Amino acid sequence: MKTTIFCHLIFVTVLHCTLCLNGQAYKIVKNDKYIYPKLHMFEQKLDHYNPTIDATFQQRYFVSDQYFVKDGPIFFYPGNEGAIELFINNTGFMWDIAPSFNALVVFAEHRYYGKSTPNDISLKVSPKSVHKFVQLSADQAMADFAVLLTHIKATVGNGNNPIIAFGGSYGGMLAAWMRIKYGHIVDGAIAASAPVHYFPGHVDCGAYDAVVTKDFARVTNGKECVNNIHHVWKTVTDTGSQPGGLQKLSSIFHTCKPLKKASKLSDWISDTFGNLAMVDYPYPNNFLNPLPAFPINVTCQHLSQADLSGVQLLSAMRDALGVFYNYTGKADCFNVSSTETTSLSTNLWNYQTCTDMVMPFCSDGIHDMFSPTTWTFQNFTANCRKKYGTTPREHWAITNYGGGDLKSASNIVFSNGELDPWQVGGVLQSVSDSVVAVYIQGGAHHLDLRHSNPDDPPAVIQARKIEIEHIHKWIKQAKV
Amino acid sequence: MKTTIFCHLIFVTVLHCTLCLNGQAYKIVKNDKYIYPKLHMFEQKLDHYNPTIDATFQQRYFVSDQYFVKDGPIFFYPGNEGAIELFINNTGFMWDIAPSFNALVVFAEHRYYGKSTPNDISLKVSPKSVHKFVQLSADQAMADFAVLLTHIKATVGNGNNPIIAFGGSYGGMLAAWMRIKYGHIVDGAIAASAPVHYFPGHVDCGAYDAVVTKDFARVTNGKECVNNIHHVWKTVTDTGSQPGGLQKLSSIFHTCKPLKKASKLSDWISDTFGNLAMVDYPYPNNFLNPLPAFPINVTCQHLSQADLSGVQLLSAMRDALGVFYNYTGKADCFNVSSTETTSLSTNLWNYQTCTDMVMPFCSDGIHDMFSPTTWTFQNFTANCRKKYGTTPREHWAITNYGGGDLKSASNIVFSNGELDPWQVGGVLQSVSDSVVAVYIQGGAHHLDLRHSNPDDPPAVIQARKIEIEHIHKWIKQAKV
Repeated sequence: MKTTIFCHLIFVTVLHCTLCLNGQAYKIVKNDKYIYPKLHMFEQKLDHYNPTIDATFQQRYFVSDQYFVKDGPIFFYPGNEGAIELFINNTGFMWDIAPSFNALVVFAEHRYYGKSTPNDISLKVSPKSVHKFVQLSADQAMADFAVLLTHIKATVGNGNNPIIAFGGSYGGMLAAWMRIKYGHIVDGAIAASAPVHYFPGHVDCGAYDAVVTKDFARVTNGKECVNNIHHVWKTVTDTGSQPGGLQKLSSIFHTCKPLKKASKLSDWISDTFGNLAMVDYPYPNNFLNPLPAFPINVTCQHLSQADLSGVQLLSAMRDALGVFYNYTGKADCFNVSSTETTSLSTNLWNYQTCTDMVMPFCSDGIHDMFSPTTWTFQNFTANCRKKYGTTPREHWAITNYGGGDLKSASNIVFSNGELDPWQVGGVLQSVSDSVVAVYIQGGAHHLDLRHSNPDDPPAVIQARKIEIEHIHKWIKQAKV
Repeated sequence: MKTTIFCHLIFVTVLHCTLCLNGQAYKIVKNDKYIYPKLHMFEQKLDHYNPTIDATFQQRYFVSDQYFVKDGPIFFYPGNEGAIELFINNTGFMWDIAPSFNALVVFAEHRYYGKSTPNDISLKVSPKSVHKFVQLSADQAMADFAVLLTHIKATVGNGNNPIIAFGGSYGGMLAAWMRIKYGHIVDGAIAASAPVHYFPGHVDCGAYDAVVTKDFARVTNGKECVNNIHHVWKTVTDTGSQPGGLQKLSSIFHTCKPLKKASKLSDWISDTFGNLAMVDYPYPNNFLNPLPAFPINVTCQHLSQADLSGVQLLSAMRDALGVFYNYTGKADCFNVSSTETTSLSTNLWNYQTCTDMVMPFCSDGIHDMFSPTTWTFQNFTANCRKKYGTTPREHWAITNYGGGDLKSASNIVFSNGELDPWQVGGVLQSVSDSVVAVYIQGGAHHLDLRHSNPDDPPAVIQARKIEIEHIHKWIKQAKV
């Protein structure tokens, strides 16, 4: 369900941290294309905007100088809303091209996420603990990155190395904004799947779910698949409202704990579809979960029979969800709380959306396959005040960062994928020779940032080529 | 004396607020070129970086729509470290050119200065009260301006009006930084006498006083004048150390209160010379004080006799200072505390220098006419901690704003004057077709921002012409 936004961009993190709680994450995956980068810690001022706070925290960053020469460029990834290892493991493009550029490769963790947390914070933001989270914001994080990059340049480089930022999703927004706000430090940015204008008044709140629906409709048997999904919401509600219905749903869906509300199941199903749309990559991968190639196709295979209903529909839906949650066949049950988990990162990103990063989501059940939901800033605010005690700033992100108004920007490539629902907040038209939009047919969420793969569609190969050309140009400019 | 920086950029404010304490300031001077602008108040969020603070304050801004048409540009002055009336009265250039552009003219006061103060702050920053001043910074002020301009555009304009920022000195830094940090809001900036790289490691701390000295040396009898000034420091010290010497100095200089330290007199004299260099305009004006045309010439007339010494030197110095402090002949005595006054604005700017705006000043008595002083960040820090309880950030302003590294910037004219000591932290070379440096021969501190005057040197007429051409270009670009 999309009455709140708490289940989109950050699902990456949610699942990631579910994994990390299971001890599977926080590891850099070995790859024959790069040696393990080295871990460093950097002492950052806790508050860049409050001069009375002298406290600091330790920021993690990873550096690989495997291909670096002293006057080479620095390829920099400004970490998203999760542990930095996730991005090290899933931003193969930087590793792939580092050798030909003689680049230093640097990944820095975003404050408060992963292990770059101030010492004394509790795990969960609440109205009581919120004062400890005041310094969690994109502005503070970018100030960290600016300070860190200045340090790296002066110590590892020659003091004058060109810096190219790479980022995907929220990290892509940060990459673009680093170029915009710290153009004297960052010489160019590859901003992949960066929804820089996904803010109230600048985006149709229903557009995200419309793309998700389109992604499901386009596969073999897509029509039947979408139709079945369309019907599942009522079937879940109706079943849940019958005597013994919740027990029945719990049993059909093999939930780890008995369901208390049917809507919880619906929300979980609906969020899963959004995630599938994001990671509908053309080859098996392990970004969010272990998944087959084109997971939407595989999911829809379970929902390909026309006009399923009742238990048959629910059982088919359970099997369909198994593609996302149990591709390895190791899951004994489904944890339908995983989008509402107490994992640090979900809570933290949700908090960010309740301050500056206000993102509106809704659906109408007509242009999309979801249960109709509305979005109002008033309801959103009430929810934020209840959960965190903060009043979100509806228009501040646009005032602060400019959204899609990029006339004064330079040296940014914005890439977006055809399959990615986040494209609706992205930059899809080039603004100038220097602020360029690249559209990737057949591409999901920042596919271009991944390692090259034999199954890459031609459009992503072309996108990377354009990106490399721009990076060459930016480095040349920076060295003049 | 220049052991601290507390007496340079902000002297404008010091004197201004001395005046306002006397009830003479906080008034907009009537001028036949414009009708009085209208006062408005705007509710601003007290803290743009701390989401747990919901408090607000009222920001003053003045608007003139005398020449405005609905789709015309907005000429915007981001207020400096003083009451906004001072800048309304001394930025005639905006008024002069508004009619031909059909521009809306807007002056906004900088938070904490003038009357745009949060309700509950005390007048003086100290280690005890400093928590109330946390929100006084350039970043917070610029966030205010961004929010205000967005509001004005949407309410007074057509929502799409080009915005040109004009500013002098610290206001010039803010104008340039608004273009750099909020390029989606500000389409171009005239940054006059803006010392954007007057920060540690990026400027020779003695360069400021060297320019002041050069300004005194260039006038008729300049050689004698400088020579006499060179000698006055020792004469003041020697006289003050004799029995009855302080009384003698107090008497010669007609000080309002008996002197307790000779060094206080020296500091006061030395700061006055810096101010004279800033306002060495070619016609009588009332910017800091009522002053004749070319006040340094007039000052030096009192010091034109070769090799003055003893009482003769001190008496001549007193008469010389009278040019700055008693041109109207109405002063009964000299208040040598005026650079160390408790006036709000001095204290506030000094506080800003003790957080982000760290500016180093020194002199060697060889390349300048002053008593030798050194500057170390260590001593500076100790002083800040003592006065305000804050630890200054030596390199943050450069990391945050980029100093003179303007390769990624666009649409800024940086003007600097030959006579202005602040030029040493200014941008004196054009960076591109779009980031342009204009040097004004015979110009003092942001002379170009003043009303046109029959006694303007040709260079300032030319500078304004270039500025107007760029403004035309920026407006045209913005409307595409």
